Amino acid sequence: MNKKLQNYKELITKKLDEYIPKGYPKSIFESMRYSVLSDGKRIRPILAIEVFKLFSENIEEIIPTACAIEMLHAQSLIHDDLPCMDNDDFRRGKPTNHKIFGEAIATLAGDALLSFAPQIIIQKTPSSVPKDKILRILDEFLQTAGAYGIIAGQVVDIESEGKEVDKATLNFIHKHKTADMFKLPVRAGAILGGATEEQIEELTIFAKKIGLAFQIADDILDETSTLETLGKTPGKDKIAGKATYPTIYGFNEAKKTLHSLIEQSCAIIEKSNYKSDLLIYITKLIETRIR
Amino acid sequence: MNKKLQNYKELITKKLDEYIPKGYPKSIFESMRYSVLSDGKRIRPILAIEVFKLFSENIEEIIPTACAIEMLHAQSLIHDDLPCMDNDDFRRGKPTNHKIFGEAIATLAGDALLSFAPQIIIQKTPSSVPKDKILRILDEFLQTAGAYGIIAGQVVDIESEGKEVDKATLNFIHKHKTADMFKLPVRAGAILGGATEEQIEELTIFAKKIGLAFQIADDILDETSTLETLGKTPGKDKIAGKATYPTIYGFNEAKKTLHSLIEQSCAIIEKSNYKSDLLIYITKLIETRIR
Repeated sequence: MNKKLQNYKELITKKLDEYIPKGYPKSIFESMRYSVLSDGKRIRPILAIEVFKLFSENIEEIIPTACAIEMLHAQSLIHDDLPCMDNDDFRRGKPTNHKIFGEAIATLAGDALLSFAPQIIIQKTPSSVPKDKILRILDEFLQTAGAYGIIAGQVVDIESEGKEVDKATLNFIHKHKTADMFKLPVRAGAILGGATEEQIEELTIFAKKIGLAFQIADDILDETSTLETLGKTPGKDKIAGKATYPTIYGFNEAKKTLHSLIEQSCAIIEKSNYKSDLLIYITKLIETRIR
Repeated sequence: MNKKLQNYKELITKKLDEYIPKGYPKSIFESMRYSVLSDGKRIRPILAIEVFKLFSENIEEIIPTACAIEMLHAQSLIHDDLPCMDNDDFRRGKPTNHKIFGEAIATLAGDALLSFAPQIIIQKTPSSVPKDKILRILDEFLQTAGAYGIIAGQVVDIESEGKEVDKATLNFIHKHKTADMFKLPVRAGAILGGATEEQIEELTIFAKKIGLAFQIADDILDETSTLETLGKTPGKDKIAGKATYPTIYGFNEAKKTLHSLIEQSCAIIEKSNYKSDLLIYITKLIETRIR
């Protein structure tokens, strides 16, 4: 694995461990820590930091937000895995949160993370960051977490199960359920780093493209992978009667679109002279996963 | 009913209706609106406004926060009522959220409210309020919503079911599950209104006292009331093997403590020359409910 990526991953995990204490009542903090500190790729917080670094050096300013985004990611996984939703038993190669802590604590751990994450942004962002920037980041964070963001995607996903899904609906699901969680760290990194509004918009397009690419790769993996390589139960989408990119567009078309999105994403980074080998590396990694 | 209280209630419901749109996906916004716009007492947002008015006149500054607190209250009720938690079928005289929308949407509607509420504070608070004050309010809001606030209370409540509970544990549950949601609006009103730190602390004591009084009254009502007057299924605590104030201290002692808390709370308002007949009225109303 890329050394820089590995260093970032360790930094983020160390910070997450530091931010979420072992408090009382024990079960709720253990449940939060179980999911947040499990072995994830940390791709979203890494994106936030690396985009920030295109514009600014003092990464202390982005770390709390980057970690908050990873907490939000963990929250959405805990709730999505619940029996009343996607009913998943495995996640990141381990039993899902409710399998260990029960449904009540898992539900509450998600809630706790959803309020803890923006608090970390408020409490831990250095005072060098202007207050109105912090409020803008919080607003975008909450927008992504809510009914106009990932929840919209999850709702339509659940309500589409077992139904004939058209391309527009599939697009809506992917846009919100997955791409919104790439848009958030990329925009947060750009905003906190001091990008111009034009640059923020350009990077937003980059984020949407890699977000969609990530989902297509995930859909392909779900059909072709094993529990071991995937870390979660494969084939679940088919069993649940869920529409995926390959089922609607076919495997070849899915792979072609994925490849094209990766090329377009890399082109945005290259043409704007953003100096980041790591952003290119991460982008290409999305496609490499399915090989 | 007190005319002023009625006017406040109508104002808050009107604002809540305005803040939560009828969006897409339809089910999630309908589910949010179902719980938030149901016929509640609105006691928490009213407290926020009335405490604010002790110090300042322009109530536009407190209304978004007051409404956000009511949304948080609705969120906690939706999740607490879920089958995996308290498994309640009725709330405010109507079927609970998951009974109408199903568990998945109810869970997501709670999540959506938890991110929507602080967004309302960010987006709707007039620019006359300094940014650092908004950040302080957000921090207190999220602290109350999270694992150090109402979630701590709910976790210990759930984990104590069917067990012998000591007074310290019962106190912890009441403090966080109930009193925190009185502390928040009172402190928010004081902070936004421009109270001194000393006044904020004094009013925090008032809030804790009426919060505990409210919970004792609720416990008494749960054992003596009907579904019609209570709006939710009575006797649930006993059936679930939950410790309540009267079961641990006895009915007489519970009523005595309740009365004493009401007197102490009124005394705080009176001795500090806070001019609010409504705060006295609301405080006394807590005790009147059980008569």
